[in-house]
Amino acid sequence: MTNAVDLARDLIRAPSVTPDDGTAMDVLAAALEKLGFACTRYPFGEVDNLYARLGTEGPVLAFAGHTDVVPTGDEASWTRAPFSGDLKDGILWGRGAADMKGAIAAFAAAVGQYKAEQGDPPGSIAFLITGDEEGPALDGTVRLMEAVHAAGERFDQVLVGEPTNPNHLGETIKIGRRGSLNGVITVTGRQGHVAYPELAANPVPVLLQLLDRLLTRELDTGAPHFQPSNLEVTSVDVGNTAHNVIPGKATAQFNIRFNTAHKGDDLKRWIEDEAKAVGLGYAGKIDLNLAVTGEAFLSKPGGFVTLLQDAAEAETGRRPALTTGGGTSDARFIRNYAPVCEFGLVGATMHQIDERVPAADIDTLTRIYARVIAGFFAGTGK
Amino acid sequence: MTNAVDLARDLIRAPSVTPDDGTAMDVLAAALEKLGFACTRYPFGEVDNLYARLGTEGPVLAFAGHTDVVPTGDEASWTRAPFSGDLKDGILWGRGAADMKGAIAAFAAAVGQYKAEQGDPPGSIAFLITGDEEGPALDGTVRLMEAVHAAGERFDQVLVGEPTNPNHLGETIKIGRRGSLNGVITVTGRQGHVAYPELAANPVPVLLQLLDRLLTRELDTGAPHFQPSNLEVTSVDVGNTAHNVIPGKATAQFNIRFNTAHKGDDLKRWIEDEAKAVGLGYAGKIDLNLAVTGEAFLSKPGGFVTLLQDAAEAETGRRPALTTGGGTSDARFIRNYAPVCEFGLVGATMHQIDERVPAADIDTLTRIYARVIAGFFAGTGK
Ligand SMILES: [Zn+2]
Ligand SMILES: [Zn+2]
Repeated sequence: MTNAVDLARDLIRAPSVTPDDGTAMDVLAAALEKLGFACTRYPFGEVDNLYARLGTEGPVLAFAGHTDVVPTGDEASWTRAPFSGDLKDGILWGRGAADMKGAIAAFAAAVGQYKAEQGDPPGSIAFLITGDEEGPALDGTVRLMEAVHAAGERFDQVLVGEPTNPNHLGETIKIGRRGSLNGVITVTGRQGHVAYPELAANPVPVLLQLLDRLLTRELDTGAPHFQPSNLEVTSVDVGNTAHNVIPGKATAQFNIRFNTAHKGDDLKRWIEDEAKAVGLGYAGKIDLNLAVTGEAFLSKPGGFVTLLQDAAEAETGRRPALTTGGGTSDARFIRNYAPVCEFGLVGATMHQIDERVPAADIDTLTRIYARVIAGFFAGTGK
Repeated sequence: MTNAVDLARDLIRAPSVTPDDGTAMDVLAAALEKLGFACTRYPFGEVDNLYARLGTEGPVLAFAGHTDVVPTGDEASWTRAPFSGDLKDGILWGRGAADMKGAIAAFAAAVGQYKAEQGDPPGSIAFLITGDEEGPALDGTVRLMEAVHAAGERFDQVLVGEPTNPNHLGETIKIGRRGSLNGVITVTGRQGHVAYPELAANPVPVLLQLLDRLLTRELDTGAPHFQPSNLEVTSVDVGNTAHNVIPGKATAQFNIRFNTAHKGDDLKRWIEDEAKAVGLGYAGKIDLNLAVTGEAFLSKPGGFVTLLQDAAEAETGRRPALTTGGGTSDARFIRNYAPVCEFGLVGATMHQIDERVPAADIDTLTRIYARVIAGFFAGTGK
């Protein structure tokens, strides 16, 4: 039977720094085939994706995740080589241990446990695995979902294995994510000499005025299960080194993390209107480049989420809080196809030097996932 | 007798792109020695300066100017080679023709005219010439004035030969200049991820707030002979390209051109107070680098200025307006030692490709300067 820690170690030992997946997907596919899964690759652009399914009937419970990892940073700074997969004093070391090869291995092992106890499930279990989550995420889950949907695949529930717990297994389940809007403002004026401002059109005050309008609006005071939406100006750039020159161009970039009180398009219209108002009577021009990279979404609490809470509490003694904080994840690409929530390992060391997790956590997560699988199919009444 | 256009051409043909004076100062010194001037060099750092005096008694009328010129820009774009000194169809071509070798030649020729008509003056005429006006201006007029003052030289009136006329000879005399303050603001906060703003201290909003305070104050509505003071934000820079990162540092630079309603130190104190107010309660810090590169000053109208107006009107039919607009000049370094005003050629082509002046303007300026010299010494009652 699949051992979760062994599989996690084998996955770590197959370096897969995004976008180069190396052999990590092969290692996973081999393990899933042993469990009876039918595996199909979906290569897009330079990245590989894997769809695996056990069973042909509904209902379908899918696990989603990624085998790619972020770069190691300075390898010499690691206590143990980042792709060693060393297991020492109960700790499994390596890039991807927490984010998220450990969780992938735990779900595969949980399927093995379920099958050993109850045989083939009265429905299907699927894996949606991408090699492009840590990169631009253009050829990953977004395209994989499109492709399998086009091939007729449907899902009743998707569970993403991202490391949702800040410090201890069982702390938090993510039941939604904030939306994200990236904006770039470019104000083009007319260059000149500071002694003759009347001959120039300084773009800086116009840009500052627009940023001021964007910053002073209170977007909201929060929404159910969400913290207040927030706008951060992340850069302002002119690049003028001459003290006596009025510059001809100024740019700024900002990011909005917004909750379900907003739609990306409404925010875009608001920003466009503010730019129009500020630009009135200005001799130069204001250009906007606004991209909504994800809408806010919330999966209904209750049902599967409660099942997940119960399972985590039974194994850890903690009842996970339901949150929507933090960054975006591939759940934003899944939410249009199926209910989705996220629960995985402890993320404290993710993306850092010396990424590592307790091996016991991987085993505990395996038992939590096994309870979830059992509960999911028990609940279907088949 | 010194011919103004010939001397201007010889000066143009001695390339002197700042800070390399080439042989321009030698050419001038030779011409002045022929007129009876005693010449002394004052080399400071990498630049040369020239002090020349005709006569040993007071009163002393000094002409101040620079032999250095700005770079040519793309030489291939010039209609005539920038150091050709070509005289064609009545136009003298070349870098420095307007700014300000033409005026230097005119003043030397005017001394020759005065001497031919009236002999040695009942007092002294001096030349204060630098090779560092277009450059950093650290080793030029500022140090030359210090040195000759230390050597006991005193001046009753200084006339700077900068090209003060926008389009036609006789339009404007500068009787003062605005002061100038350069400021650099650096806000240092704490970097972070846009999804976790509570863990970061974004320096951008703090910087924007401070700039907003500086921009919204109306410094004044003008002062006698001065336009209103003006603040221009000339750059804002963060240099962050990641959309999901809150930056750790943000800088801005600005320049204030201020009239006699302000002292540089008062403006510095105001900016420091605003920074303190904005920084209250901010987890990061605000650093200021403020430099006053010149105070505002105004030379009393009447007396010598009226003499200059009369002379210009007699030769051009135009009575020059008295202004204080435009950029700074070396007059800022002279004002503490003697009354100073500025009148020279037409500046329309200065610092540009195809810098040039009508040869007739140089001759007219020579006659204006000769009238001024005559009037100056007539007025002394000797
Ligand atoms: Zn991840
Ligand atoms: Zn000049």
